Amino acid sequence: MKISVTQEKLAKALNNVSRVAVGRVTLPVLNNVLIRVDNKKVSLITTNLDMAIIDFLPVSDSEDGVITVPAKLLAEFISNLPKGEVVTIESKNTKITIKSGKYSSTINGSPADDFPELPEINEEKAVVFKIGIDEFKNSINQVVISASNDLTRPALTGVFFNTTDKTLSIAATDGYRLTEKKLIKNVKSEVSVIVPATSLQEVLRSISEDMEEVEISFNEDLVRFRLGEVEIISKLIDASYPEYQKLIPKDNDIKIILKRDEFIRVTKLASLFARRSASGSITLEAKTPDIFSVKSIASELGENDSIITTDVAKDAKINLNSRFLNDALNVLDEPEITAELGSRTSPIILRNTKNPDYTHIIMPLNT
Amino acid sequence: MKISVTQEKLAKALNNVSRVAVGRVTLPVLNNVLIRVDNKKVSLITTNLDMAIIDFLPVSDSEDGVITVPAKLLAEFISNLPKGEVVTIESKNTKITIKSGKYSSTINGSPADDFPELPEINEEKAVVFKIGIDEFKNSINQVVISASNDLTRPALTGVFFNTTDKTLSIAATDGYRLTEKKLIKNVKSEVSVIVPATSLQEVLRSISEDMEEVEISFNEDLVRFRLGEVEIISKLIDASYPEYQKLIPKDNDIKIILKRDEFIRVTKLASLFARRSASGSITLEAKTPDIFSVKSIASELGENDSIITTDVAKDAKINLNSRFLNDALNVLDEPEITAELGSRTSPIILRNTKNPDYTHIIMPLNT
Repeated sequence: MKISVTQEKLAKALNNVSRVAVGRVTLPVLNNVLIRVDNKKVSLITTNLDMAIIDFLPVSDSEDGVITVPAKLLAEFISNLPKGEVVTIESKNTKITIKSGKYSSTINGSPADDFPELPEINEEKAVVFKIGIDEFKNSINQVVISASNDLTRPALTGVFFNTTDKTLSIAATDGYRLTEKKLIKNVKSEVSVIVPATSLQEVLRSISEDMEEVEISFNEDLVRFRLGEVEIISKLIDASYPEYQKLIPKDNDIKIILKRDEFIRVTKLASLFARRSASGSITLEAKTPDIFSVKSIASELGENDSIITTDVAKDAKINLNSRFLNDALNVLDEPEITAELGSRTSPIILRNTKNPDYTHIIMPLNT
Repeated sequence: MKISVTQEKLAKALNNVSRVAVGRVTLPVLNNVLIRVDNKKVSLITTNLDMAIIDFLPVSDSEDGVITVPAKLLAEFISNLPKGEVVTIESKNTKITIKSGKYSSTINGSPADDFPELPEINEEKAVVFKIGIDEFKNSINQVVISASNDLTRPALTGVFFNTTDKTLSIAATDGYRLTEKKLIKNVKSEVSVIVPATSLQEVLRSISEDMEEVEISFNEDLVRFRLGEVEIISKLIDASYPEYQKLIPKDNDIKIILKRDEFIRVTKLASLFARRSASGSITLEAKTPDIFSVKSIASELGENDSIITTDVAKDAKINLNSRFLNDALNVLDEPEITAELGSRTSPIILRNTKNPDYTHIIMPLNT
């Protein structure tokens, strides 16, 4: 195995794949990156068994072969070599020698046979979608924050990709909040699968400026994201997703339009008190004809009451976890946000005012 | 107590002093900032009993009085208010009301009587030095990294301020490395005291761009740093400092001049291997007539050997902790660095080549 490539390209690819190489005490080879040169095509591969990431590296010179070496050590070593120079990596038995100008180093690896076999997408049976990279990135960011960390409810640790009425939607919920985005309209194929949130976060981290589109291919138990020269293959979560549409309230009849900047500021000010209190809650209150207030009461510390002036047709009041509201306002991205309120026990619905494709719901706290 | 001041000035002062307000379970009032208005002079004060920080705040309008309130809550609240607006803080009993435009909030405080009394410098007995802020900042940064965290040897947790031959020097050592800087020459007063490294770090954090000079005043058991509108008063460490000059080798007869950038790069590359090994050590080797090499051998991982070409008059070799060498190269700041080597058991001396006022010594590892 031999490759020659510029320091910049190699460092970028290694930094990307080495994130996934976290290793396990029982399987230390997962700390390694598999470097494979097959018919002059070079791929760098890491896996944590749930997912694998592959970076296809355009190189100027190569010889076929395969080896695995510690990913983080190699990535850091290459990152510290001088920029603009060509780096040559050559394997001999289970070692690689790295040379760049006057720098030379040997890293001990292990044979490729020790590396776990990678799952492969069955191209013929795959259901394929394509979407622009910015739209994809923004949408996943908006939805994935509601995914749960609770491993006892595996379905909720993922993002649900689901087609209804020819629209591919993605959704996540941890039981306290729910996010949904209409991702692609007028799709021809159907899908209903749960993608691990952790895999999606790796996809997001792999996105770089030069990428334009992502191709998403689903098999029954696998998904592959193809972004330029990077591929991420992940297992799907084998569980049934709750019927989340039922959680979206239908009769929240009080619509309030708020300037995002102002809404963020009053929420932050109230949160400073709320997160030092036991409940962490803040109170939103709408009063006719034009008062929207955000309040915190943390009796030991003091209290905070901020008012936004906006049209209010009917009185309403709700208690919310202040952190969840902060999170929501950070991913809603238009200058104006519409809040839909109903009774005190009805969840709040938050949407961008102009484009309602993204829905963010937070359950009330009944304190 | 009442003050009116722009959001920017108040936020900056509060963010500065609130760092010191870390509180103690037994003395929660240390979480608070003391706001004192005395004859129209406003001061914001926090203390951790070892040191106190005072920010004198120029305000447009004020009424005398004094109160204490939770420092971090107040600092975060003020930071989140709109910039460019005037903020008014007014006390009533043990509460303050904060108003800025349409934002209003109440924070519960406690009476100023609960706040510990602050030590004061005796101006008449004080020994005073003045130095430009950039020179001071750079020098403390260069020296303080060698101070120890080991509370069982209190002297070593400080920086030694000491006059010899009309020069004020500062020095620190943790037993593994030693740093010394000649700070001010031709001084008229004499001093020999140990300033806690933690207090000096707070002084560094308080430095802002608009400051020009620092005035340092010593009493027998106190030091005061006066920087523009900020004052930091700290207890001194009551211990005797080791005779550190004896640790500086006199007979290191091999002088090697190295480009800093190159020295940093080869040290980093070798460190990647060394810090994954048990000893953490790297080997520097000088060979006549022109080879200077930095090597790591971490048998499990591989090995690294980088060569710098430079004049070498005599062979030498030394093993060093790679982290200590990295630290040293980060604070030496000229493009060329002089390394002085002696026998394998003699510490290495590192200095900027042009200005030798700063001395950095690292003890060898005898592995």
